[in-house]
Amino acid sequence: MGMQHTPLLMSRIIDRGATLAPDVEIVTATASGTRRQTCAETRDRAHQLAHALADAGIRAGDPVGTFLWNGSQHLEAYHATAGMGAVLHTLNIRLSEHDLEYIINHAGDRLVIADADALPLLEKLAGRIPTVERVVVVPSEGFEDWSTTVAPAVDYEAFIAGQPTRYEWPELDENAPLGLCYTSGTTGNPKGVEYEHRSQYLHTMAICMTDSMALSATDTACGVVPMFHAMGWGVPWAALMLGCKQVMPHRFMDPARLLQLMVDEGVTISAGVPTIWQGVKAAYEADPDAYDTSQLQRLTCGGSAPPPSLIRWYWDTLDVEMIQGWGMTETSPLATLSRKVMQYSHRDLPPDRQFENVAKAGQLMPGLELDIFDEEFNRLPHDGETVGEILVRGPWICSEYYRNPQPGRFHGDWLITGDVGRIDADGYLIISDRSKDLVKSGGEWISSVDLENHIVALPGVAQACVVAQPHPRWDERPVALVILDEGADVPAERILTHCATQFAKWQLPDDVLYVKSIPLTSTGKMDKKTVRAGLDAEGYRLPDLREASAS
Amino acid sequence: MGMQHTPLLMSRIIDRGATLAPDVEIVTATASGTRRQTCAETRDRAHQLAHALADAGIRAGDPVGTFLWNGSQHLEAYHATAGMGAVLHTLNIRLSEHDLEYIINHAGDRLVIADADALPLLEKLAGRIPTVERVVVVPSEGFEDWSTTVAPAVDYEAFIAGQPTRYEWPELDENAPLGLCYTSGTTGNPKGVEYEHRSQYLHTMAICMTDSMALSATDTACGVVPMFHAMGWGVPWAALMLGCKQVMPHRFMDPARLLQLMVDEGVTISAGVPTIWQGVKAAYEADPDAYDTSQLQRLTCGGSAPPPSLIRWYWDTLDVEMIQGWGMTETSPLATLSRKVMQYSHRDLPPDRQFENVAKAGQLMPGLELDIFDEEFNRLPHDGETVGEILVRGPWICSEYYRNPQPGRFHGDWLITGDVGRIDADGYLIISDRSKDLVKSGGEWISSVDLENHIVALPGVAQACVVAQPHPRWDERPVALVILDEGADVPAERILTHCATQFAKWQLPDDVLYVKSIPLTSTGKMDKKTVRAGLDAEGYRLPDLREASAS
Repeated sequence: MGMQHTPLLMSRIIDRGATLAPDVEIVTATASGTRRQTCAETRDRAHQLAHALADAGIRAGDPVGTFLWNGSQHLEAYHATAGMGAVLHTLNIRLSEHDLEYIINHAGDRLVIADADALPLLEKLAGRIPTVERVVVVPSEGFEDWSTTVAPAVDYEAFIAGQPTRYEWPELDENAPLGLCYTSGTTGNPKGVEYEHRSQYLHTMAICMTDSMALSATDTACGVVPMFHAMGWGVPWAALMLGCKQVMPHRFMDPARLLQLMVDEGVTISAGVPTIWQGVKAAYEADPDAYDTSQLQRLTCGGSAPPPSLIRWYWDTLDVEMIQGWGMTETSPLATLSRKVMQYSHRDLPPDRQFENVAKAGQLMPGLELDIFDEEFNRLPHDGETVGEILVRGPWICSEYYRNPQPGRFHGDWLITGDVGRIDADGYLIISDRSKDLVKSGGEWISSVDLENHIVALPGVAQACVVAQPHPRWDERPVALVILDEGADVPAERILTHCATQFAKWQLPDDVLYVKSIPLTSTGKMDKKTVRAGLDAEGYRLPDLREASAS
Repeated sequence: MGMQHTPLLMSRIIDRGATLAPDVEIVTATASGTRRQTCAETRDRAHQLAHALADAGIRAGDPVGTFLWNGSQHLEAYHATAGMGAVLHTLNIRLSEHDLEYIINHAGDRLVIADADALPLLEKLAGRIPTVERVVVVPSEGFEDWSTTVAPAVDYEAFIAGQPTRYEWPELDENAPLGLCYTSGTTGNPKGVEYEHRSQYLHTMAICMTDSMALSATDTACGVVPMFHAMGWGVPWAALMLGCKQVMPHRFMDPARLLQLMVDEGVTISAGVPTIWQGVKAAYEADPDAYDTSQLQRLTCGGSAPPPSLIRWYWDTLDVEMIQGWGMTETSPLATLSRKVMQYSHRDLPPDRQFENVAKAGQLMPGLELDIFDEEFNRLPHDGETVGEILVRGPWICSEYYRNPQPGRFHGDWLITGDVGRIDADGYLIISDRSKDLVKSGGEWISSVDLENHIVALPGVAQACVVAQPHPRWDERPVALVILDEGADVPAERILTHCATQFAKWQLPDDVLYVKSIPLTSTGKMDKKTVRAGLDAEGYRLPDLREASAS
């Protein structure tokens, strides 16, 4: 042994930023403006939170749920749990009641830290989440008088008050669990991805590389992507390590407000799904003179592929580079990424050719392996034409789902991503199709199969087929094709009411179409490609788009 | 286990650049010009070399010596040994015959790859390096007719000819040895630092971070620092991973030739010791109109601290950022580094204040721990004033020396670096001196480095070297050896008056000695041990002791 085998623990990097940049601010949006604290205060409060969690009986390895928007307390929860070795289970505030109940119980969260304004959603689970011993409530403007019966509750400030501002972070195994994030992208119940210290540590280093997001201590980072999505794409960790200024929008996601916040705080880099940047574009265009965007340099965009026209608009209009990234919860999430110029031979490309690169999903991050395969898992050529199933492996790729291994989602140690795409001669990944059965709405997945299974459970329904239809704002919205039993009468309202018992409102189909038959593939599966093509041929439009064009 | 525990092997990153950028060039200087091959050719030849080494009986874990300048074959040797799991033992061509014999035997090199022009140095060891079964000789222009009796020899091209261009890199333990580099910085025999795959992998990621060297695939990298010094500071690995153009100066280190090579090839980043950049500066000043340095962006400078006046010259004259780095063979080597602007609060600093940052050794790379300690290993305050012994630990820091552990060089798992310095409130490390080069006068320390930096800022002074001389009353007193620019006349009085503007009277040198040259160590640093020995051999006495004995 010639070199030190220092474990790659997040506790070794998360205090660094506050040490180097104690006075730099963490800014959180509030109902009436912003709330500000320094990096040093954030670190001190995180250490206090760790002590409070330990006093509440939380030990290394215990799951701690967060039901929080992006804000300073969420950052403190990241910091505290990572440091002490607890497991940060980020609960997606937008999940259905059913899924939320499932994942809290599946993870066995012992404590949940929740934003007061989100308490009503949690309240519905009263009596159904027995592992939760305590709820720590983060109050906010207008929500000072919160109450809950879901579990014994305590105010966040009271919880951490008086605790020491230094916690001696323990030495853990570098493969100890760090976080849990459930993905509802596939059939059946949500599946948990368990992040580990080593995997997120390496991911954090990767996103700070020049040819990646190029995060720097001089950046002002605004993570618009919720911190309950795949560790906020790693931005919180990197910002803690580097000592960046951070700007956190909380629940205030109105595009004009978001843009104003970014302008006011001098945000240099932000991260979010395409629908966010569509909205911000519209807000800007409504009043271009109102916003000085000169500080803004780059927008990391993932979750689904941003339309090239959107990338081009930011480039041409705001001189902002949209960095397209590809990945998923299972990939920590960053796997590939595209910059204007990220190869030596591209240095002198004219802008239009640079743009062709940016419109691709991009190059694989160093350390990962990715390839496209046919159905028998033979590797396919990188000719920019051949389309195959995308598989990926490496040190920040999921190896199995939490307490639900799902071996069918892996081929050896390769993760079967469920996406299909091409690889060109320059080594760029191009996503051909977001896996065809899923509906991507507002950055969230809606499982068509889950909806179908639920709909056909309704008496009188013979068959159901849910497909995505394009929507300018939400990217895609689900439409349900339904075959009724002979002589049955099941109105659309009843189908939607039935769905609402299990699914969140935004997951409900926008339309119910009664059909006589649904085309099948040669292997007897519903042929959704043909269904979508049929709707296209008919000139089908979603209800709210019909109204728009009529007006 | 939720995430893949993919071993951090160099084989996972070294082929990446050639895949992404097959046509980018690797340029090596030759007697009459340059020799060029592509990244893809370099990769193919590296895989061929691995096959040839395997055929020669080299197995994973076996040491392979290289006695090579920076050139494409040295890069191929890095690539091949790392991929196949052999241990790259970089032999310093400038070592003494005695040390060379010692380290080849101590490492037990089974095979040595040597540049033909360096063979005469190796030849002196004939009969004294019995473990070496074979020498693979890299011919070059003017050295086609090489011969050696040191071991059975084969031409490099013949050695790799006909081998397959794909070697299936084996799965190794990530802590398997990767390289051996001996350091001759201390008394006694050279000591070996054994790099491991994991340690260099993490170091490679670190130097590609934006707030570090910010290496990018779009860079043209010219490692002037020899690849037999601490893995060429990691530049070869990073360039292989990213797919940079690489420019390699081989033995042609004449400053004017070096500068011309950098200009001709559009080098954007280079790395070397201060004496190199002093020489390049002189070459530029001798004929400023001859060089278009517009492509050059940054020069990484380490090994010893560059004088602030030198940093400033590059900044003001060439608009080139000199990135000061601090580290040593034992630290892989990069530990701290300084950029113009590397904290959020420094974004709006005026240039003169930015410059103060660059003149420091800089900030610690994420993942490492560093602190200053007193003689009883108590941590000292970070007040920018208190000077202490610098200790460092982390995942790319040496844990013991190869087959010669040297526990006295460690305190627990902290490496005792042998450097002393301060840490300021911004977290910047400021190196005062090598602990053995500090001048101890009347119970106080005088930094030889501070005096040297101040003296070389005086017009007409080319180089300065301050060493301690024994004194019966004060213990030690400083003496300055000075090299003047050609034709300059800078009397001792002016040097001392200049020093008095910055230093207390008791810190001023007792004597100024004008010399024609200052001996350098094999790693290009001023060899103060030899300077002191030379003064001793001459019977040098300090002025007041001369007066005392005369009176």
